[in-house]
Amino acid sequence: MSALSVEPTDAPLTFEELQLATRNRGMPLEALRYDLTPTGLHYLLVHFDIPALDSATWRLRIGGAVKRPLELSLEDLQARPRRTIPVTMECAGNGRARLQPRPISQPWLLEASGTAEWTGTPLAPILEEAGLDEGALELVFTGADRGVQGEIEQDYQRSLTIAEASRPEVLLAYEMNGAPLQPQHGSPLRLLVPGWYGMTSVKWLTSIEAVTEPFDGYQQATAYHYQAAPDDPGEPVTRIRVRALVVPPGIPDFLTRRRLVDRGPVTLTGRAWSGDGEITKVEVGVDGDWTPGTLGPSVGEFAWRSWSFEWTAEPGDHVLACRATDSSGATQPVEQPWNEQGMGNNLVQQVDVSVR
Amino acid sequence: MSALSVEPTDAPLTFEELQLATRNRGMPLEALRYDLTPTGLHYLLVHFDIPALDSATWRLRIGGAVKRPLELSLEDLQARPRRTIPVTMECAGNGRARLQPRPISQPWLLEASGTAEWTGTPLAPILEEAGLDEGALELVFTGADRGVQGEIEQDYQRSLTIAEASRPEVLLAYEMNGAPLQPQHGSPLRLLVPGWYGMTSVKWLTSIEAVTEPFDGYQQATAYHYQAAPDDPGEPVTRIRVRALVVPPGIPDFLTRRRLVDRGPVTLTGRAWSGDGEITKVEVGVDGDWTPGTLGPSVGEFAWRSWSFEWTAEPGDHVLACRATDSSGATQPVEQPWNEQGMGNNLVQQVDVSVR
Repeated sequence: MSALSVEPTDAPLTFEELQLATRNRGMPLEALRYDLTPTGLHYLLVHFDIPALDSATWRLRIGGAVKRPLELSLEDLQARPRRTIPVTMECAGNGRARLQPRPISQPWLLEASGTAEWTGTPLAPILEEAGLDEGALELVFTGADRGVQGEIEQDYQRSLTIAEASRPEVLLAYEMNGAPLQPQHGSPLRLLVPGWYGMTSVKWLTSIEAVTEPFDGYQQATAYHYQAAPDDPGEPVTRIRVRALVVPPGIPDFLTRRRLVDRGPVTLTGRAWSGDGEITKVEVGVDGDWTPGTLGPSVGEFAWRSWSFEWTAEPGDHVLACRATDSSGATQPVEQPWNEQGMGNNLVQQVDVSVR
Repeated sequence: MSALSVEPTDAPLTFEELQLATRNRGMPLEALRYDLTPTGLHYLLVHFDIPALDSATWRLRIGGAVKRPLELSLEDLQARPRRTIPVTMECAGNGRARLQPRPISQPWLLEASGTAEWTGTPLAPILEEAGLDEGALELVFTGADRGVQGEIEQDYQRSLTIAEASRPEVLLAYEMNGAPLQPQHGSPLRLLVPGWYGMTSVKWLTSIEAVTEPFDGYQQATAYHYQAAPDDPGEPVTRIRVRALVVPPGIPDFLTRRRLVDRGPVTLTGRAWSGDGEITKVEVGVDGDWTPGTLGPSVGEFAWRSWSFEWTAEPGDHVLACRATDSSGATQPVEQPWNEQGMGNNLVQQVDVSVR
């Protein structure tokens, strides 16, 4: 079954897609210049409504197949060991609206990513304290945002295997870039699963339930799958696929966003990241000729790496592109990796420029 | 001459509009619940690119028809008298994509507003210090964002008459919601003109120039006009037209955003604001029957006012609407006030709900 209520289309954008685009927020690509994305520039995808939670009365319940159910306040969590990790996050639907035919959902082009420093407490010791039953297979994370999707009324819920949830970098996060979470990023507490697409890092977390059967909720079993066709069950979407982006050089035209660049030496800069390993190469394509760029430092083990490329801009129209490769050997496709839900589309970015 | 490079259309959304929608950011309407919009939820419209300015080396130059040109650092400005004002800001293009035919530009529906506490120093005493020449007519405010619009390469520039610029609430603002401006909101300094549409509050301000002739730059003389047709010069867009918005009740469907509401008593809440006076009335329409709501407090003289309405939701489909009136007597139209550039469209909001 497809997770989409409308079939993919080559037709123009729908009103429903526009409604989603004016609610959800991309990161303008010039913001790739910041090691850490300012909080107000980070991408944002909210499935339903941003809930209003009172952090004073809010509690996190940990239960299900555990020996010692817990109920924790924000203060309880803040009193536990504190860890801060810079993490590049990306929406699994990033790139969806570049596909042909186009799956109908939030119509992301390239802007659904960002990097922030997240602070919280590791989940694994809390699980240990709760004492998972032997038969516990997965943890179900429930957020406070509620709505209807795929004709199913639901709280937003996702699961992780015990092994994935117990990785040391998995946090219960209450701060972003040194400040308490803003409402839209999950206040007072969200799950943070570095390396995975954003749907995994459940916002407005209210409960963690250990279950002994695979979780079959809508967001886990239906949505977020790489389906080749509507009747293909597909593989689940998990870690972030490798991607590089370039800061569009020069100045833009307001409406077309086409770039106007002065002739001569231009330093192209950008970022690259992957949930499957380190970035080992970024190549830059100028009118189809690919040359390796220079890698800069990573912002962190789970965060993007800067890169640069010295380009001599010759007058005329050009197409710039960039392509990253990671330590697993994965690289970005130059032809679209189409799937039914428009997930993980890491097709190389192209930027049209006019050099004068 | 129209400010648009493409004619208004009844055709579906274009790729160019989508590109703008994924860069610019609306405020999801549930965020109307906050007196002050969290910084990361405030609407954002950037004409060109967000510039990268170094606040340590940045200077504001005040010159032109003045006796004593000034060059001020951020520290100089911060050492001057400090004032904090809550201000509701709105993009003049808010509502544009609801028009038929639809002017092609940033395709706002209803989300291009927000309220923040802005801190800065009043402009008037600085003008006095610089000593305006007798012939000075307007001030031209230049931002550091540069690009092409209407086929004209330009820094973003707007002007104000001396009288408007000298009003006590006009600030040179360096903080938003108690923190230094984030890059996207004009860091290190922006103009803030309470009561006017957002294009007036020039971000990334680098210079203020007193001029003796009316400024005829693109953003002043061509864009931001209420044009009835392409050959109508039109009236300039100035103050924010009266508007009320309601927080959509119940829970949403992900794709359609249609609301599902439980039967029984529902407290509808929202905000209303106007740049032309106080809000004196908010009416709520249920299936076309209008009843006055209850006004709550204003967040400030230049900020939105809360309102509420007790609705008894009966099973079935309903259309909710709201309409504000201000102390100037202005109210919101129930039929679209079309104009060529899609400016100041304060047509009443409608929310489709299904009550169960």
